[in-house]
Order: sequence, then structure tokens, then C-alpha cells
Amino acid sequence: MSAFYTDPVHLVRGQGVWLWDADGRQYLDCYNNVPHVGHCHPRVVEAICRQAGTLNTHTRYLHEGILDYVEALTATFDAPFDTALLCCTGSEANDVALRMAQALTGKTGVIATDHTYHGNTTAVHQLSQTNPPPGGYWDSVVFVPAPDSYRPLGGEPGMAHAHAFAAEVAKQIAVLEDRGCGFSSLILDPFFANEGFPTLPHGWLDPVVAVVRKAGGVIIADEVQPGFGRVGSHFWGHQKIGLTPDIVTLGKPMANGHPVAAVVAPAQTMQAFRSRFRYFNTFGGNPVSAAAAMATLRVVQDEGLQANAAEVGAYALSGLRELATRHPAIGDVRGSGLFFGAEMVLDRGTKAPATAYVKALANGMRQRGVLLNFLGIHYNVLKIRPPMPFARAHVDQLIDTLDAVMTATPLA
Amino acid sequence: MSAFYTDPVHLVRGQGVWLWDADGRQYLDCYNNVPHVGHCHPRVVEAICRQAGTLNTHTRYLHEGILDYVEALTATFDAPFDTALLCCTGSEANDVALRMAQALTGKTGVIATDHTYHGNTTAVHQLSQTNPPPGGYWDSVVFVPAPDSYRPLGGEPGMAHAHAFAAEVAKQIAVLEDRGCGFSSLILDPFFANEGFPTLPHGWLDPVVAVVRKAGGVIIADEVQPGFGRVGSHFWGHQKIGLTPDIVTLGKPMANGHPVAAVVAPAQTMQAFRSRFRYFNTFGGNPVSAAAAMATLRVVQDEGLQANAAEVGAYALSGLRELATRHPAIGDVRGSGLFFGAEMVLDRGTKAPATAYVKALANGMRQRGVLLNFLGIHYNVLKIRPPMPFARAHVDQLIDTLDAVMTATPLA
Repeated sequence: MSAFYTDPVHLVRGQGVWLWDADGRQYLDCYNNVPHVGHCHPRVVEAICRQAGTLNTHTRYLHEGILDYVEALTATFDAPFDTALLCCTGSEANDVALRMAQALTGKTGVIATDHTYHGNTTAVHQLSQTNPPPGGYWDSVVFVPAPDSYRPLGGEPGMAHAHAFAAEVAKQIAVLEDRGCGFSSLILDPFFANEGFPTLPHGWLDPVVAVVRKAGGVIIADEVQPGFGRVGSHFWGHQKIGLTPDIVTLGKPMANGHPVAAVVAPAQTMQAFRSRFRYFNTFGGNPVSAAAAMATLRVVQDEGLQANAAEVGAYALSGLRELATRHPAIGDVRGSGLFFGAEMVLDRGTKAPATAYVKALANGMRQRGVLLNFLGIHYNVLKIRPPMPFARAHVDQLIDTLDAVMTATPLA
Repeated sequence: MSAFYTDPVHLVRGQGVWLWDADGRQYLDCYNNVPHVGHCHPRVVEAICRQAGTLNTHTRYLHEGILDYVEALTATFDAPFDTALLCCTGSEANDVALRMAQALTGKTGVIATDHTYHGNTTAVHQLSQTNPPPGGYWDSVVFVPAPDSYRPLGGEPGMAHAHAFAAEVAKQIAVLEDRGCGFSSLILDPFFANEGFPTLPHGWLDPVVAVVRKAGGVIIADEVQPGFGRVGSHFWGHQKIGLTPDIVTLGKPMANGHPVAAVVAPAQTMQAFRSRFRYFNTFGGNPVSAAAAMATLRVVQDEGLQANAAEVGAYALSGLRELATRHPAIGDVRGSGLFFGAEMVLDRGTKAPATAYVKALANGMRQRGVLLNFLGIHYNVLKIRPPMPFARAHVDQLIDTLDAVMTATPLA
């Protein structure tokens, strides 16, 4: 399977924001959202060990761990989110969410953006235009152009762009209705992480919400990347953009690397799903998984990691903006909390993507002991998404190293 | 979600073959294959704790744990199985296996038995006729009658039954070809666990293999239930029945409850899948998952649990057969290793299923501190599948309790 970097890293140890390879070389981890509260956080490790030594079985018996966790989790949501279904991967969560939307609407049509990724089951794979499924797309899957705040649809940023995006969704709803499958759901990451996390104001999704509601569809917010306080200003990405979705999916950072994921929804939505689809997940929400997820959530809360993300993320953005004054390849600096980056261009006038350059940067950073990556519509956006205990001193190392690597790397 | 038993069990602790509820009541676990080597086995717990405290990250870096594990795992297989893809649940494994078959054949049609269960993603849910998907079955999914050695197709047991089963598969291959999707794979549990684990001789699948090969299809063996030495005579269910499948899927018992699953296949099959489908699983085969799976496999091997399953399972079967001499409700006693049970009937002549009776038995056993369950084509088969360190003394307690519960439970 494919590994990151031209020269893949062979890891043997992690602690906090640090990783070590087999040769004893130390790396600053600026990329991993899986170890959300830091590699090998002692409270999470302890919770896993204690529960693994006490009881771990499948989920057909009663156990308080899952109930306590779902209560603690849904307390971070606004109304009407009051229950959750636990599974093992974000792919499973999105696979369930699509069927939950089907149970609510009686329709099957799904709209996704053309540069997203929601996972890798047979059904969820259908949502990746970046990764076309052999045999083609189902009639029930259509796409809209991903929001790009640097090159906004229609040419205007802000709410004009928002209305243009909503018009594209309306167009695709009509396509689904013409095809006879009807419109079930719009699935999106409210932070549009894979699309390059465009800068979108609070309320930007309001026009699309109106279009979806009018058509009787539902909105699935995939919080696998922005969730659990990462965006700093809010605990969830949908709160940041001012969206009240119908169904929310969670994954990677939820239990600091232990395989846990979830679908969060109002009780009546869960009931609609359960009554139409008999669903059971052997490992989903088992006692150890629930303990690992609970410890992770409590560390986020007890250590003030959302506030840290806001403060350190703002510091990092200002560091990137300062770099941009000296490096013309930086066309745009974007992000929120500890999810930030820069879009690299060959020319700020034409905004031509510097795709090869950003790839060279990621590999150059890896060679100098800083792990990050790149993504976006044109694969020219540096993606920086470190463990949440990231501090100002780590930002300084990141920015200084990036400065050096950009200086050493030819733009074209 | 649905829990086992009319009066569900609220568990708080497990050790070996024992479970304890919140009131301190002790239960003999005769059902759980998830804690394969016994609840909270210290070697598995220690492996999880050690690795969780050292490194756990996603799977885009190099790590030796997954390589060591896949080598140890494939060493238990016969040629040509030499590699594996790790994921998190049996559902994910089967979802991948279906696409692997599609990559090999270029076709999409799948045949399953009409009383199986292979998991719960959107695609895999299609394979459960016991659990019909809202919106109906895809054209690419068809079913054959599940083998029933107690009521064999065509009336004759053994190889006549085998040829009748193969003829049904041939009929459904023609249906798939008529529909234009073509025939990709036959997916089956080689032990037919959910179908009530019929008694089938070595070689019983040979006629169906010939039919599948002639049609250019592949066979997926779902080893989620029979695998890892449970059937006693062999390490894998497909070895027991003398089948060489093309793709093998693993799940539940693989890491004693830690969410790990796998697809095992020859390297060129894996390559065909990887080149047609870009597949990535964040948690699949991560360092902790690999360590948990490795410890579980080593315990099976080091503690001789396959041999224990053979010996104690044979003792249990003789106990059930002795019970059958005194309880006419026992129509058939079946099983292999530590996967055994009895089919309950209202009348041995008519073989009318005693469905309500077996449900009452499972609940009666639970009230007397023995956990087991029931399944099968008519939901009238006691399913007994304890953790692998199950011993003769545990069999005695199981049989004595069953004797008492059967005596106390009215047949109709």
C-alpha cells in the first residue's frame, strides 16, 4: 500500500507531538490528527489498559461505558443531537449515515463535492471523484464543484460564492430527481478539509441548507477531520460555519488511534434507521473502545486543547502570513485552529498551482524532521494538522524549517 | 440496539471463560468467539498496553508490526496465500473481498446462501436474505439454498447433496449472466455457521468449486466464525472441508476483541485489487492492532488451543449425544471443535423446528448462569462457541445445566 513521502518514514515511537524513527531520528509531527491529544497520551493508554484487563466483549450485552461516553459526547453538540451509534471507522460511519438519510427520506440520491473523500467502503467510495470506482458511478451519486475561496465560483468570494454553490446543489438535486432515485442527502465536511479548507464565513452554507430543506433532503456533516475542538473557535466544524446538519459522522481523532467512529443524530433519526435497517457492529462501542474514546474526550476538555488550538493556530497563521511576505509562492494562507496551511502558486497573478513544488516541500520538510503533507483541489495546499498539544515553540520550529526548505527548493 | 436474551446481561468483568455481571453473578461463557483466547488474556492485554504506550498511528508510515503479523498469519495458510490487507471489522473485510473479486474477474455478480450473514456495510448487507435491505436487492446479488445436512436438498445426504448444491449455484450463475453483470464470486462461510453448521464431509464443496471455476468466478471464504483453530481438526474452516478459496476474510476472534480484521489473498490478487481500487484504512493494521492480533495468534499456537478445541469439542459432542438419548427434542447433534450445538425439533419424524423452545432454552440457560445462543435456517439450533480455553469441567457444567433446563422447559 502507498506510504507518505518519497522516502517513507519507519516509525518506532511517539510521545506528544514527537515521533522517532528506527534510526533514532526525531520528527515534529505536524500532520497527525489520529493521535489527537498527543501520541501515547498517558490517560488514554491507561484507560485502554485498565478496560482491556477488565472486560472487552462484543456489544450484545449491556455495558455502562458506551452510555457514559455517548452522554459525554452528545453534551458537546447543540440540539437536537442526543444519541449516537458507535462503529469502528469513519468509512463505516459514513456508510451508515448514507443509509440513515435513506431511512429518513425514502430516497437514495446523494450529492458530494468533486474533491472530497469520505472513506472506502463500496458505497462510500462512490463519493470520491478523486478516486473513481471501477465500473463507474451509481446513478444515485452526483457531484458539485468543491468550494474554493481562492478561486470562487462566479468570481466573487463570500456570499455570492455561497449562492453559486447552492445553485449547483439545486441543479444536481434536479438531476437526481430526473433519474428517479430522488434526493436523499448532501454529504460534506463542513470545513472542506480535503478540498483545501477554503476560507468561508459563518453562514456560508445557509443558502445551500435552504435548497436542501426545500427539496426534502438531509445534510450529513462529516466531522472526521475538523471535529473534537481542532478548529479552535468551536468544538465542531459545523458549529463554526453555522450549520445545523441532520446527521454527523466522526472518526480518526475520536479515541487517539484506537479504532472508534460514530454517527451522531437525533433519537428519532436513529430510530428511523434502526427500524428500517437491522444494524449491528461487533466491535463498535465495545468496552475498551468506549473507554479509549471517553479518555480522549476528557483530555481535550480537561487540558483546554480547543482553546490551545485557537491560540496556537492563530500564532501559526501569522507565522505563515509573515513567510508569505518573503516567499511569493505562497498564494493564500488559510485555516482555523490547528488545521491550517498555505496554497502554493507559480504566480500570484494567474494563481497557477505549484503542485510539484508543494510535493517537494513536504518531502524536504520530512528530510529536515518535520512531518506534514499536502492536498486540495489542485494538490498544491500544504496541510498542517498537528496533535492538539502543539505549542508556540513547535510553530516556531515548523515555520523556521518551512522557511529554510522553501528557500532551498526551486519553485519551477 | 438489540441485546441478547429477554433479560439482557449487564456485564462488568471477564476472565478466561468467565463473565461477571453488575450484581456479582458469575456466568460460564459458552458463546463468545470474540475473546478467542479467553476474556482479558494477560498476554494480549500486555501486548496492547505496551504498544499503545509506545506508538500508535495511522498506516501511511512503515512499521514492522504489521509485516511480522502478516508473515505469522499467512504461515498458517496453505499456498497460495502469502499476503493480507488489514482492516477493522469483518464487514470491512467482506466489503473489500467483493471488490477484490471484481478486480480479478471484471464482473460484479455475487452468489451467497439464503441464510448467511457476512456483515453490515451497504454492499455486504446485500448478502443477507435474513435481513432484506430497504430498496431491495441489487441485480448483482443472488442466493442459493443454504446447505442443511439434516434436511438435505434432494433428500440425500453427503455427495448427492453436494451435487444438488452445485447445481443451484450453476443455475444462479446463469441468472447473473442473463442479467448482464456476469459472475464474479461465490461467498460462503466454509463451516456455514449461521446456517446451523451442517455436517458436511471433506470434499463436499468440490462439485461447487468445479462449477465456479468453469464459469471463471472466484470463491471468497468468510472465516470470521470458524477460523483460528476453532474447528479443532484444522486451523481454518476451508482446510477442514478441503476447499482452496481465492480470497479469505477474517474478523471477530482475530485480536481477542480489539477491532481488527483482514483479507488474505495471493499477492497477485492483492495487486489486482490495489491497482484497480485505491484503498486505505486509517486504523487497519496500526501498530496496536497488529500487536493485539500477533499476541492472540501466538497464544492460540503456544497454548495448543486448536488441539484443545478438538479434544474438548469431541467431549462436548458426546455429552450432547448422551443428552439426546434422554431428550427427544434433540433432533440432531452437530459441530466441530469448539463450535457445536444441537438442532431442536418438535418431532423427530417430521423434523418440525422447535424454534420457541430453543429460544426458551437460551434464556433458561442465561438464568442459570450459562451464556449461549441459537441460530440456523429455522432458528432452532443451539449455538455453542466458547472461548478456546474451554475445558472438560466447563463442558460438564454446560451439559448438566442444559439437561436441567431442557427438563424444566415444556417443548410446546
